[in-house]
Order: sequence, then structure tokens, then C-alpha cells
Amino acid sequence: MNELAIGVDLGGTSLRIGAFTGGLEPVESISMVTRVSAGPDAVVADIAGGIQRLIKAHLGSGKLVGIGVGSPGPINLIKGTLGRLPNFPGWDGFALRDALEQALGLPVALECDANAAALAEWKAGAGKEIAVDSMCMLTLGTGVGSGIVLDGKIWHGMVGMGGEAGHWPILPEGPICGCGSRGCLEVYASATALVRIAAEMVASGEADDIAQLIEAKRAEGKGITALDLALLARAGGDGAIELYRKLGFHLGLGLAGLVSTLDLPLYIIGGGVASAWDLFSDAMFETLHAYSYVYRLGEPSQRLKKEKDKTFVCPAQIGPGAGLLGAAMLPAFRASRAHL
Amino acid sequence: MNELAIGVDLGGTSLRIGAFTGGLEPVESISMVTRVSAGPDAVVADIAGGIQRLIKAHLGSGKLVGIGVGSPGPINLIKGTLGRLPNFPGWDGFALRDALEQALGLPVALECDANAAALAEWKAGAGKEIAVDSMCMLTLGTGVGSGIVLDGKIWHGMVGMGGEAGHWPILPEGPICGCGSRGCLEVYASATALVRIAAEMVASGEADDIAQLIEAKRAEGKGITALDLALLARAGGDGAIELYRKLGFHLGLGLAGLVSTLDLPLYIIGGGVASAWDLFSDAMFETLHAYSYVYRLGEPSQRLKKEKDKTFVCPAQIGPGAGLLGAAMLPAFRASRAHL
Repeated sequence: MNELAIGVDLGGTSLRIGAFTGGLEPVESISMVTRVSAGPDAVVADIAGGIQRLIKAHLGSGKLVGIGVGSPGPINLIKGTLGRLPNFPGWDGFALRDALEQALGLPVALECDANAAALAEWKAGAGKEIAVDSMCMLTLGTGVGSGIVLDGKIWHGMVGMGGEAGHWPILPEGPICGCGSRGCLEVYASATALVRIAAEMVASGEADDIAQLIEAKRAEGKGITALDLALLARAGGDGAIELYRKLGFHLGLGLAGLVSTLDLPLYIIGGGVASAWDLFSDAMFETLHAYSYVYRLGEPSQRLKKEKDKTFVCPAQIGPGAGLLGAAMLPAFRASRAHL
Repeated sequence: MNELAIGVDLGGTSLRIGAFTGGLEPVESISMVTRVSAGPDAVVADIAGGIQRLIKAHLGSGKLVGIGVGSPGPINLIKGTLGRLPNFPGWDGFALRDALEQALGLPVALECDANAAALAEWKAGAGKEIAVDSMCMLTLGTGVGSGIVLDGKIWHGMVGMGGEAGHWPILPEGPICGCGSRGCLEVYASATALVRIAAEMVASGEADDIAQLIEAKRAEGKGITALDLALLARAGGDGAIELYRKLGFHLGLGLAGLVSTLDLPLYIIGGGVASAWDLFSDAMFETLHAYSYVYRLGEPSQRLKKEKDKTFVCPAQIGPGAGLLGAAMLPAFRASRAHL
């Protein structure tokens, strides 16, 4: 291999390590369970071992572009330490970057996973053909992550906490969020939120179709997922259709605030929930129109293509691999921005 | 005069033109009624006439640093044109910058008034001793304006519409805003909003003290103002105290979103309403703590002084002259940032 770039996507459930060419073509990837309860040292050993295997197998006489790691936020990017991560109990303040650099004897670029995914979508995904310097990606998964790029730089705020738009309070009377606040975008627009809201609709008798789905899944010994609910909506289930309409409303409120405050040219909706774009996007655009005059001023004449000086909101293109790809892109991206 | 800088603050009610030394000491300022209904050409003639008088009186053999103009937003900064301004009916799309440059035969730097005020507070007011590269100022006046500085640059968004955080929907079921949306921060935290909410509290029998104030003012042939309500609260009026507590809650919600999304080191609260800091800041900080985990992570141990890596929220220092001073600072600021 002439050049090899390594990316790591550290999730609460699974850990993925990928080798890419310098041109970002995938070479090989490793996926394993994240041994969260075994503690940070065990997981660092897993990551370092995987990276060393990939380097040994593929680097040959080539050049290692670098190693990038995406981790759930918040991260203190200056110190390279983790914050208080809900899915990593006992890891508070762990010096992930130092531990990995010590285990590998190589420099490591650490970034919040949502920012890594945003980098990949911006440069190699939905933003690839558009050539904008600023954008925001909302990742609707277990939680709602956000990655903001401003004037060609990933926006980090004071110490790397910036870009947590998933925790903007969109309805202050809303349910408690995992972050400890109330009514965050995350409690309305994540996959977890969809399942909770579906159950609430069943409990209030609004959604017989969802009630039947839950019964059927229970008979199989399973719970329902956001994907099950999307399939139900596409099959014509009224409750499920309404559920995704609500998602579009809440997402539209969050976007309205972002558009009004930052007026970026591009917003990408990613994460697993985004695959239901056909089910929520009409309500999302209606809400965005209703709640942001900045959007109305820059509203495109059609939604499918970026127009100059118009706000473009679109689904992500890369899918679940965006975080891993973005992590692998990180070292070269940072080097190219070093003059800033 | 060695150096002379000219600032213009174009408001819906009054027009102010100020001459400053190169070191930004005030030399002379002119204030007149903005002849909105006479049309843009008449107002351009007023502005140009005022500027020419100040230049003639004070420039002598000195150097003109430049002319900066702050105008209500939204502005298309690329074209130098006004957007649809609620207080300037019939002015939509007016090419203010070109008209002024033609009338004067000199270049003019145009900026949104809230951004001009933010520039002044950042460099010469509450931010002067703090030396941060990023900040946000919310101006609570007739409306709620916002000015955002990121990495040393005034943030303009795609075409100069950016930074309208006053139009983030904080309560989507809320009243209609002047912008056409519903529940914007502006309908809860402006001086106009305070008077409206006071009347609502009286109507629902919650505020006998305010009812008495309204009666007393009516006997004098006057309406009540935000300042009257602040005086009433300081005199112990329960309704007025609650009114400012509500303001603090709503402002705290808006700040919570900004802090979570951008994680800036400094937020300045300005405009006429900010003089009631003693009445609303406790509720504002409580709400910010409750609704932003990013704030909780970077919460200062005390509120009165900026601490490293902690979020600092403070009142503006310059007062109503910030827009005029910031306009005068604009040409030199832009020149110093021309390499960016």
C-alpha cells in the first residue's frame, strides 16, 4: 500500500477499526464488541491490537497517513480526555488519547464521533459535490449528535464541548433527557425517542397499528425498533405515519433554531433514523418554513438540489460507516488545516 | 484631528451619526429623527449630510479611517442591500451601501446593527479585558438582536442573515412574532414583549401591582415601559418581580441552546432591558443550569468574573451607544481582518 489511513469508531456497543487507502478506499475493517465494563485499559488494548494487526497486514513499505479516533462526546479536545459519557460508566475523565498514543507509540487524532461523521459526509458524502465551507450534520441514532463545520473548521467551542445541538431544549416542558436536562431535541428525534413516543401513543389509545406491532413483536420475544416503525408507516399504519410526522415537526424546530442562528448553506440529516427521510421530511420542511424567517428568506424553489444562497437540507449518503470513514480522514484533514 | 472614524446607527426611530478619534474617543455626535416615511433617498441624504458636516468640522488635515453604518437586519452583506425590515415599510431590497457611497464619494462598511453593537462590546466593552476570540451578544430592545463572533470574525452566515438567534423558537406554541413565526425568543425577551406579558398578567388577575401602575400611567396619558416595570419590581411589586423572573427563564432557555450548540466563552446581554440585570439574572442562570448540560460542564464557580474554560454570561457595559461605536470601529476592524 502506498498510503494507509486508520480510523477507529468507538461506540458504546461496538468498536470498529478500519484501514483505508490514502484515497479513502476501504481496505479492511474489524468490528468487535466494546468491552465497556472491562474498563478503559482493556478497550485501549483492543483498539491498539486491532490497529497493529491492520498496519502489519497492509502497510508494507507504504506511509502511514495517520490514526484518527471518533469517540462519543463530550470530549476535552485540548487534554484528549473523555467527559461524562452515559454509556461508559466509570470512564469519566479517561485520558483516551494519551493511553492510545502510549500503547501504539504513534500520534492519534481524537475527535467527537458526530464531528467525525460530519467530516465524512461534508467531504465525501452528501456535501461532496456541493463545495461549501460551512455545514451542520445532525446524527439521529441512539441519541442526537451534531457536528458543525464553520469556514472549513470543525467547530469545537471552548474545549471541545461545542456542537451539542442535540441538547438544545426544544420543548422546555418535555421529558428528562439522558444529559439531565428536559425537552432536548434528543428526547424527540433519536431512535430511542421514537420507540418511547410510539409507546406513549399506544398508551393514550392513539395508535392501534403500533399496539398490534408491539404485540406481534412481543410474541417473538422482541421489542420494537425505529426501523420496525418505519416499515409499519410505509405499510400504511396511521399511528406510525403520525409518529414520523411528529419526528419531522420536532426536527424542524431544531433546524429552525440552527438556521436562524447560523444561516449555514447545508444541513445533513444522518444516523439510522434518517433512512426514514420519506416519512418525516415533509413535516420537517413545513415546520422549518413556519418557524424560521431566515429559512423563508433563503428557501429553495425545490428541495432536491442545492441552489446558490439557498438553505439546503438533505439526508446523509454514507450511512453507518460515516463515523469510521471520518475518523480515518481526520489526521490528513487536521494537517491540511494546520495553518489556521 | 490625526485620524477620524465615522459611525452611523440607523434605527427605525432615530438616526445617529458620530465622529470618533482613531483611538475611538467620541468627538461629536448628531442625532435626528429617521424620516422613514419620506423614503430611503431622503434618509440617505440626511446621513450623507450629517457625515459631511462632521468631516468638515473635524477632519482637517487628518486621515479618515473610514465610515461604518449599522442598520437593522436582515441585510444582504454581499450586495449591501436591506432585507424586509418591519420598521421600514417600502424599503425592501434598498441598496443602502451603494446609495451612501454614491452620495459621499467614499467607501462605506455596512453591518447589521446587532453585530456592530457586539463588535463594540467585544473589543471595547464587557469583553475588553477578557480577550476571547469568540462571543455572542444578545441585544434586548424593541426586538431581540444577536451578534455572534467566531474565531475573531463576525459570523454572517450565507449572505449576512446569520446570527438571528432572537428568532429561535423557544416555545413553539407561543405568540406570533413580527417575523411571522411563532414563539421566538424575541416575543419573550424584548422590551416590547415585557410590556405585552405585563398586560397579559394583569388580564389574568396575576398582577395587581402592574394593574395599578397601568392605571396611574393612564391617568398621566401614558403607557407603561419596560423601565417602569423594572422600577416597580425594585419597589417590591410582586407581579413585576415575577415578570422579570419570567424574562430570566425565557432568556435562559435561549442561552441554553446557544451554549449547547456553540459553547462560546462569553455571552453578553445588552439593550435597554439588560439594565434590569439584577431582576432577571438569577432566574436566567437557574434556567441555563437546568437546560444546558454543556453549561453545567463549564459552569463557573462564581458569576462575576471570567474564569478560564468556563462559560461567562454578563451584562453589556457600553449601553445604548454600542451600536454607534461599533459602526465607527467597523472599517478598521474589517481592514485588520482582510487577510482572513
